[in-house]
This record gives sequence, structure tokens and C-alpha cells, in this order.
Amino acid sequence: MNNETPINLEKVKLYLLKLQDSICQTLELADGRGEFIEDSWQREQGGGGRTRVLTNGAVIEQGGVNFSHVYGGMLPPSATAARPELAGRSFQAVGVSLVIHPHNPKIPTTHANVRFFVAEKEGEEPVWWFGGGFDLTPYYPFEEDVVHWHNVAHKLCLPFGEDVYPRYKRWCDDYFFLKHRNETRGVGGLFFDDLNEWGFEKSFKFMQAVGDGFLEAYVPILEKRKELAFSAAQRDFQLYRRGRYVEFNLVYDRGTLFGLQSGGRTESILMSMPPMARWEYNYEPLPNTPEAELYEQYLKPRDWLNLNT
Amino acid sequence: MNNETPINLEKVKLYLLKLQDSICQTLELADGRGEFIEDSWQREQGGGGRTRVLTNGAVIEQGGVNFSHVYGGMLPPSATAARPELAGRSFQAVGVSLVIHPHNPKIPTTHANVRFFVAEKEGEEPVWWFGGGFDLTPYYPFEEDVVHWHNVAHKLCLPFGEDVYPRYKRWCDDYFFLKHRNETRGVGGLFFDDLNEWGFEKSFKFMQAVGDGFLEAYVPILEKRKELAFSAAQRDFQLYRRGRYVEFNLVYDRGTLFGLQSGGRTESILMSMPPMARWEYNYEPLPNTPEAELYEQYLKPRDWLNLNT
Repeated sequence: MNNETPINLEKVKLYLLKLQDSICQTLELADGRGEFIEDSWQREQGGGGRTRVLTNGAVIEQGGVNFSHVYGGMLPPSATAARPELAGRSFQAVGVSLVIHPHNPKIPTTHANVRFFVAEKEGEEPVWWFGGGFDLTPYYPFEEDVVHWHNVAHKLCLPFGEDVYPRYKRWCDDYFFLKHRNETRGVGGLFFDDLNEWGFEKSFKFMQAVGDGFLEAYVPILEKRKELAFSAAQRDFQLYRRGRYVEFNLVYDRGTLFGLQSGGRTESILMSMPPMARWEYNYEPLPNTPEAELYEQYLKPRDWLNLNT
Repeated sequence: MNNETPINLEKVKLYLLKLQDSICQTLELADGRGEFIEDSWQREQGGGGRTRVLTNGAVIEQGGVNFSHVYGGMLPPSATAARPELAGRSFQAVGVSLVIHPHNPKIPTTHANVRFFVAEKEGEEPVWWFGGGFDLTPYYPFEEDVVHWHNVAHKLCLPFGEDVYPRYKRWCDDYFFLKHRNETRGVGGLFFDDLNEWGFEKSFKFMQAVGDGFLEAYVPILEKRKELAFSAAQRDFQLYRRGRYVEFNLVYDRGTLFGLQSGGRTESILMSMPPMARWEYNYEPLPNTPEAELYEQYLKPRDWLNLNT
């Protein structure tokens, strides 16, 4: 359609750089002690990034908030396997990706990502799409926190259509699923990809709504739970469950595997790994414990907006 | 060739069951406190196994020694992708697989595996092969330990041909390589697969030599280093390096991925995970430290039999 707004990668990039800034500032404030340390890096094949990592904060044990802008003369084969019509195109990708591992097992781990992808070929229209989302991985969940999380997700989706939240909520449940454990990674949130059917302006606005919504969804949970006491046994269970986070990211996560296999910057990709994790042969939670409740009530897809219906 | 000894899966299975016994007994003796706990399990699609796990020993923090015998009416597609001529055949697989994670960072982690595979079709000759090997992953290596390890590997290969050790040593270096880190997993050892060109008897003998050689290679190292003192910083480094073990097993190891994707018993497959592991953004060892020496001298393929040539 010729009356559509043309795509504007620079505008997306500016938004993402500001988003990285505001997320880091807000998380530093909420943490109260930790500071993000920045590493700028260049990619040999084109582009680079700004990795920011906070370790040993008062609340955040390890958190990474990465911006990257990478480009290349030709899409890697792994990126075009599912879309052969893009083979041979040059590409640009900009995105912000974050993972926060709090120390306190009462605060969930979280991940968020927003990205914009453009594949170009001389004499042809660029092919582009947005993707992203955010999801929550609690260890000792509070039902009201999960409801709040999904309410924020629902609210930010609503201006874009009534079907948007249910669609991207289900996609999130499907994506963050450990088949070999028959568990979701956590309580989900939103996941979207290949978004372009709304045209550039509306799609970009949606990506911004997701990016901006993350802090609104996460920070109140972190603030509410950060002073709660926890036991060594609860910390142990958190480390055990973090093993699942490692399993998901290394066995299933497409972004991680694509990054590692295509010569991405390993340290920026694996900043998603927890600072410490545990495995225990044949562990199963005892019946009628908070640990059993996590498995039974939270590690499967649920309709968090209508719990009592 | 009609004058060849016919294959005998029962004989291999008996050997493997005894091998599991003798490895567990010897490791319990060497540990001095820990005991292997056995879990027998059945596989829905056919077969089962005997998983044995030792945790919190005096020396071994976590170790698993698994026997399994699985079979099915049809090879899974992932197993025949590289060998389409086997598609649709029924199969049997027997094997012993072990991973030992000692507590003391002066003792290397080790992995060993021996396996026998038969793919059958009515009216046709069975297709079969042996595979296996053992490899060593030190944190604070002693050169003499690594030389001993490779000497045992070399010695057990020699009766089967002069080219056997160099061939399977190189295969091990190639296989246990983390491309995204540009490091080997450790100092290697032996790795072989698809072995049938020697006929059943000789191939089986080789598999036994590898299986029997493991204890001869590993136990003297464990005994020699188990009383050594270590610092909290050395323990920290071990936990950090164990993260690499996790990365290798979940990103690259074919057995692990095949097992998880084909509905294997998750807890038996992931008994290879370390009991505890750590990740640290952008860690690099300081120059002229034992940690730097590990990276520079041990995490790349070397000719351990001829160090001074």
C-alpha cells in the first residue's frame, strides 16, 4: 500500500536506546545499591551493541539490559530456513533484551525483549517485522502479583484490538514451554513475532506499548516483595528452579541458539544465565507445600484475568 | 561376510550390567562415604534402565552411572536423518553412561560412555555399531594427571591398531568443543562411534577395553588429589567452569538433545548436570594465574603423549 508510512529504523533505534536508559535508571532506583556497568561492543560482521549488567545489587543478584543493532550483507541461513523468500537479502536488526535475576526467591525472575527487523534487496520493498514480549518466572508466587502482571499486559494490548492479549498470551505460554519437563517456564505474559500486518506506525506503537509496559508490570512486584524474609531452603529451591531457566534458554530459546550458532557476542547472549543454579536428581516437591503449589498452580497455562470463572 | 561371529546383544548387555556394578563399587570405595542409590525405570515405548546416583559423598559431590536398554518398533526420525537407509527399522540400544562431579576443584569432572546399537528389519541383516569413549574436564589440572589419562587411553587402543588412539583422540577433541567459547570442554580422551568395520568380536572387545579402561584412567587421579586443600576462590572458579559443562551438554551434546527430544527419561539424561554451577558476565582469568593456565594450556587440543617434542 503506497499510502502507508514508510519504515523508519532510526526512529525505532532512538526509542530503544531511550528504553534501555529508562529501564536501567528505574531498576537502579528500585534496587537502591546496584549500578549497571556498560560494555560497548562491535560486531565484526557489522553493527554492535551496548550491554549493561548489574551484579550484586541489594535486590538484583544479576541483571542484564542489552541494546544491539546488528546488520549484514546477507541473512544467515538459519534465519531464512523458515522464510526462503528472504534468502540473500541484507538485514538490520535492532532490539533491547533484558533478564533480571533477583536474589530474593519471593521476587520472580523476568525477561523482556522488543525488536525490529528489516530485510532489504535493491529494487524491492523492504520486508520488516516487529517482535517482543515479556514473561515472568516466579519461585514463590503471590497470586495477586501474577494477576497484576497479566492485567498490565492486557491493558496495554487493548487499544490494538480485543484479540491481541489472548493471542499473544497464548503464544507466550506455547513458546516458554519445557517439553522435557512438561512445564511452562513461568506464568507467561506476552510474546509476539513477525508483526507487520498493522503497518509500520501501529506496529511500532505496539512495540513501544510492550517496551513501556514492562516496568509498569514488574517494578511494583519487585517493590512489594523486596523486603520479605526468606529461608535457606527457599533460596535452595530458587537455585534449583533456576536450573530450568538454564535448560529452557540453552535447549529451546531460538534467540539464544541463533545467537550462539551465528557468531553473536557470547557474553551478551548468555547474560541471561542465572548467576548460580542447581540441579538435583529426581527432586519432587513434597505434597501440600508452597513448592508443590508452584508446580500445580503456576507452571501451566491459566487464564489469569478470570481466575474465578 | 558369512564367517563372521553373529552379533550377540545379550552378551553386551551382561557386560554392561557388570561394568555398571564394578564402576559403582570402585567409586564408592574411592569415595569412602557416599553410596549409589538405584532407580529402576521403564520406558513407555519399550525398555528401561537402572539409574544410579551418588550425592554428597566425601569426594564425589554428585555422580551418576546409568545403564539403559531401550528398544522400539521404529527408529525415531532424528536418529535416521543422517542414515536414511535405517528409516523404519526397529532398534535396540544398550549402554552405560556416567558423569562424576567431585567436590574438590583439584579433581577433574569426568564422563564416560559405552553403547551398542542394533537396527533390524525382517529378512535383512541387522545393522549394528558400537560407540563410546571417556573424557576429562579439569579445573586445576596437574600435567602428570592428564598425561596419565591419555597414556591409559593410548595403551588400551594399541592392541587394536596404531592409528586407533590418534583417530579417537582427535574425534574426542572435535566432539567436545564449545564453538561459541572457542574452547574444548576439557582435555579430551577418546570418542568413537559407528564402529563395526572390525566385525562384532573385535569391536565388542574394543568397547570392553574402553569400559574397563575408564577406572584405570580416572581412579588414580581421584585418589591422588582427593586430600588436597582448596580455597573458596578455587571452588568459585570450579562452579564457574561447570557452567561450561552445562552449556556443552545442553547446546551441543547429541545424546542429551536426542534423549530430551525423543521422550527419554529426563532425570536420567540430566543427571549429567552439575549439582551447582555459576555464570559471571565477562569473566576472564587474570594473567599468570592457574586459571589463565587452564585456558592457555589445557582447553585446546594437545598431543599429551609427546609434550616435549
